[in-house]
Amino acid sequence: MSEGTVGAIGEFGLIDAVVARFPSTPAVLVGPGDDAAVVATPDGRVVATTDLLVEGRHFRRDWSSAFEVGRKSAAQNLADVVAMGARPTALLVGFGAPADLPVAWATGLADGFAHECGLVGAAVVGGDVVRSDQVVIAVTALGDLEGRAPVGRAGARAGDVLAIAGRLGWAAAGLAVLGRGFRSPRVLADAHRTPEPPYESGFAAARGGATAMIDISDGLVQDAGHVARASGVELRIDTACLVVAAPVAEAAAAFNVDPLGWVLTGGDDHALLAAFPPDVALPDGFAQVGEVVAGEPIVLVDGAPYAGPGGHDHFAS
Amino acid sequence: MSEGTVGAIGEFGLIDAVVARFPSTPAVLVGPGDDAAVVATPDGRVVATTDLLVEGRHFRRDWSSAFEVGRKSAAQNLADVVAMGARPTALLVGFGAPADLPVAWATGLADGFAHECGLVGAAVVGGDVVRSDQVVIAVTALGDLEGRAPVGRAGARAGDVLAIAGRLGWAAAGLAVLGRGFRSPRVLADAHRTPEPPYESGFAAARGGATAMIDISDGLVQDAGHVARASGVELRIDTACLVVAAPVAEAAAAFNVDPLGWVLTGGDDHALLAAFPPDVALPDGFAQVGEVVAGEPIVLVDGAPYAGPGGHDHFAS
Repeated sequence: MSEGTVGAIGEFGLIDAVVARFPSTPAVLVGPGDDAAVVATPDGRVVATTDLLVEGRHFRRDWSSAFEVGRKSAAQNLADVVAMGARPTALLVGFGAPADLPVAWATGLADGFAHECGLVGAAVVGGDVVRSDQVVIAVTALGDLEGRAPVGRAGARAGDVLAIAGRLGWAAAGLAVLGRGFRSPRVLADAHRTPEPPYESGFAAARGGATAMIDISDGLVQDAGHVARASGVELRIDTACLVVAAPVAEAAAAFNVDPLGWVLTGGDDHALLAAFPPDVALPDGFAQVGEVVAGEPIVLVDGAPYAGPGGHDHFAS
Repeated sequence: MSEGTVGAIGEFGLIDAVVARFPSTPAVLVGPGDDAAVVATPDGRVVATTDLLVEGRHFRRDWSSAFEVGRKSAAQNLADVVAMGARPTALLVGFGAPADLPVAWATGLADGFAHECGLVGAAVVGGDVVRSDQVVIAVTALGDLEGRAPVGRAGARAGDVLAIAGRLGWAAAGLAVLGRGFRSPRVLADAHRTPEPPYESGFAAARGGATAMIDISDGLVQDAGHVARASGVELRIDTACLVVAAPVAEAAAAFNVDPLGWVLTGGDDHALLAAFPPDVALPDGFAQVGEVVAGEPIVLVDGAPYAGPGGHDHFAS
């Protein structure tokens, strides 16, 4: 357990404490400690995405450990890289913290980043630490397309199979649990604290001919809508194909809500939605949930526009 | 002038409003609007750096326009890429804002980013917008080494010439002016609001054989110390070679302080400090300020360790 606060050890002490926790990889040509990092991009292209997480909005320090916040912050960016059909190689992390934040929280966060990066072979290569009123975490992830075309949102074609890998509704159920002051079911609270994006299924989809793929961060219906509009196709989701996991169903019953609402609109699980040509075998981890048809760029759930509450708008109150 | 607040137009309305302001470049293979961007890296490596800026600490909305904050946020990251000997290609921007922030402020910020990127041929390729109590700006810059070795902090050798391009002390003088409630001299206030990193001199240094280079963001003495330690050499700075610009000298006289303090320890001008072999002609914009000698990894100012107040620690109060 580290003693003291980030204010006490200062900017450079904090940098030294966290950088020591980040293993390198062969792709890291210049790591932390210079004006900028240098990362190998043998493919001649680099995939890049960024997310900003703010305490009280994207995580709560009384609900999640620093390690869990680190894993989550990394995971949602790594999932975006994977959803483009790329393999994550590097992360850059901007960290804003009040001076009275315990050093142990900052090092726990760093451990969470290192752990999640280890799952996909990426490395933390750079960052910035500043003082702020709220804890703020800015993550940028880089990735390697390994010679393939990027898998964007615009490639879905009529006749494609619509499929999902990963969990849906778990994080939303966990948020409901935590929001009512409970700590259990632990498996749901943990799903909110730390998503488990299906990284390997994403790599398999990229190699296996997915025509479009998206990281479901704001909810299935909303993110499917992005694919429908970008691809100019109608997406049909059959709720009979959606998995309502037992813990999700049980929590919904306890709270007297429809679990399908969580599955269709809950964010933060970072499942992957992808379209595949009909003659392609679905990669491990993917299950069909619907189909792509010619038509207006909309999403139909069991044949009708979804009538429940929508997905996430970060400025909605 | 845009009407309304970012809360009123919502996350996707805000994204549409700002993305429209970002011109593309040939290096942008996939721009904003997908899970991640794709940027060309013909060199097989990518340079990457990130900075986090927090309202009230790195900028004040009553001192700087949104356009100026955008320029400054971009400039300090572009300067880091240039200081590695690379040409900036792309920026990713995370933006946190309270819901009552005027949309016009957000679009002004975007215009500032676009303007500064235009100076070096870079493009804004992605980002994230979230709600936060303070305005928070997270910037990641990517760059292309164009086939050259990176110019790090560790390459300075005994016998090298120490040289600087760009302004020193201007932003610190401007901060002193603004901090005392003045708006003039305008040229100093503007220097605090918007640095003018010597991008072209940096490109010339990378092509022209610089052995080490660093973006002076925290003050000459402190950043020279990073070079001294990384390179394992003694850096000697001759203050007779440092330019004390007339506006800086006049403000110092008015405030009864030593202008050399601002020149030696003032941050935020983003001048470049570089070392060059003695037989190399200094690139345009660079002037010698000292020399590199064998010895302990320290910085001597006129033959002695600098005894004045130090550079910047982001957690110091």
